[in-house]
Amino acid sequence: MILGKVIGTVWSTKKDENLVGAKFLIVQELNLDYSPKKNTVVAVDSVGAGVGEVVLVAQGSSARQTILTKNKPIDAVIMAIVDKLDISVKDKIEKVVEN
Amino acid sequence: MILGKVIGTVWSTKKDENLVGAKFLIVQELNLDYSPKKNTVVAVDSVGAGVGEVVLVAQGSSARQTILTKNKPIDAVIMAIVDKLDISVKDKIEKVVEN
Amino acid sequence: MILGKVIGTVWSTKKDENLVGAKFLIVQELNLDYSPKKNTVVAVDSVGAGVGEVVLVAQGSSARQTILTKNKPIDAVIMAIVDKLDISVKDKIEKVVEN
Amino acid sequence: MILGKVIGTVWSTKKDENLVGAKFLIVQELNLDYSPKKNTVVAVDSVGAGVGEVVLVAQGSSARQTILTKNKPIDAVIMAIVDKLDISVKDKIEKVVEN
Amino acid sequence: MILGKVIGTVWSTKKDENLVGAKFLIVQELNLDYSPKKNTVVAVDSVGAGVGEVVLVAQGSSARQTILTKNKPIDAVIMAIVDKLDISVKDKIEKVVEN
Repeated sequence: MILGKVIGTVWSTKKDENLVGAKFLIVQELNLDYSPKKNTVVAVDSVGAGVGEVVLVAQGSSARQTILTKNKPIDAVIMAIVDKLDISVKDKIEKVVEN
Repeated sequence: MILGKVIGTVWSTKKDENLVGAKFLIVQELNLDYSPKKNTVVAVDSVGAGVGEVVLVAQGSSARQTILTKNKPIDAVIMAIVDKLDISVKDKIEKVVEN
Repeated sequence: MILGKVIGTVWSTKKDENLVGAKFLIVQELNLDYSPKKNTVVAVDSVGAGVGEVVLVAQGSSARQTILTKNKPIDAVIMAIVDKLDISVKDKIEKVVEN
Repeated sequence: MILGKVIGTVWSTKKDENLVGAKFLIVQELNLDYSPKKNTVVAVDSVGAGVGEVVLVAQGSSARQTILTKNKPIDAVIMAIVDKLDISVKDKIEKVVEN
Repeated sequence: MILGKVIGTVWSTKKDENLVGAKFLIVQELNLDYSPKKNTVVAVDSVGAGVGEVVLVAQGSSARQTILTKNKPIDAVIMAIVDKLDISVKDKIEKVVEN
């Protein structure tokens, strides 16, 4: 999974019929200190994520393993909202990042 | 999904027999301000997209989850035409990009 | 799908038993003006493509959606030979590339 | 598979219902001499891996081929803990890296 | 598929129960002239490949389409040993690389 932050929404009227009701969110990839990476991905929300929240995104066929995304032409899904990261270096905890 | 713009068409006479009738479009990846990225992908159209339109492209096995692409050797599908993007930074809406 | 040109062949005697008879071609990725990219991929031919031809390559599980590649350990297939590209910029046709 | 080192944990309360109990670990990709690469991935643990351990990560649909991850929206799994690498160059063993 | 050379072995005692007996090899990606690329991948051997051999690696779900790898958490498999490459440029054969 990749770590990202929801920064926006994609609006689409004309889409595959199975995608009616799907919420397309723009997710900016994050480094572990929550600084932004350059890359963004459009992902369907399956957990009620909103703009500004830090999330995990699953990609590929795994993106279709939720009730909302099953059998749909979707290759990225937000499947978790991140509370915090515990990051250790050299086996010692150096940083705790909280949202 | 990736954000892109339809910039052309690929013509092919000799192809897998299941691909007869499939419309192969050339999609240029876009940044969130609709400026072009360097990368392009060839995707099958499933929503009636035309040249100049901003679209979403699903890749991998998810590209086969439409009626038109099911069980076919296709790894990228246009599954939505984008109306607009709402982009927020630091939890405030900074930009609205309309087509 | 990616756009590429067949530039060679891989010969292999010792391979998975399901791959006997498969034709492994070396495909160089192309830009839209048919200039070569750096990247190459080895793909199985399903449409009778030969050296020098411009082709489309489907990757991942979609590479197994042809009669020749079904249920085989193959992650890239040539599924179309390209006749020409119509490329438009700013909604006007600027270039037509013919083979 | 990619070679990586577990450097932390992602905590998430709000997630897909099938992910309750899943342990999300942060894995830093490693070079063959165990020096860190820039890239990190969040992977579910299926083998009892802990912080500081060198592991293998399988991605994509293959990440769902364990008892813990089957049919879940997970695209990366830790499926092995690495004891050591034997690395040969020019057909001679030059380096043995032990954890 | 990618072209690579087997340069080593990964030893792992603690792994997914379905992986007992699997041989994890370190494959360095190669250019077409057999010069090494920077990238390496860990792949399961399904054809009796050894250190120093030039091979093809299939990735993703296609890596599970061999008897040895079926339904296992494996995303890369060596499915062919390369005898030689015939490489043509501008429709003429310029190079033949033999192992």
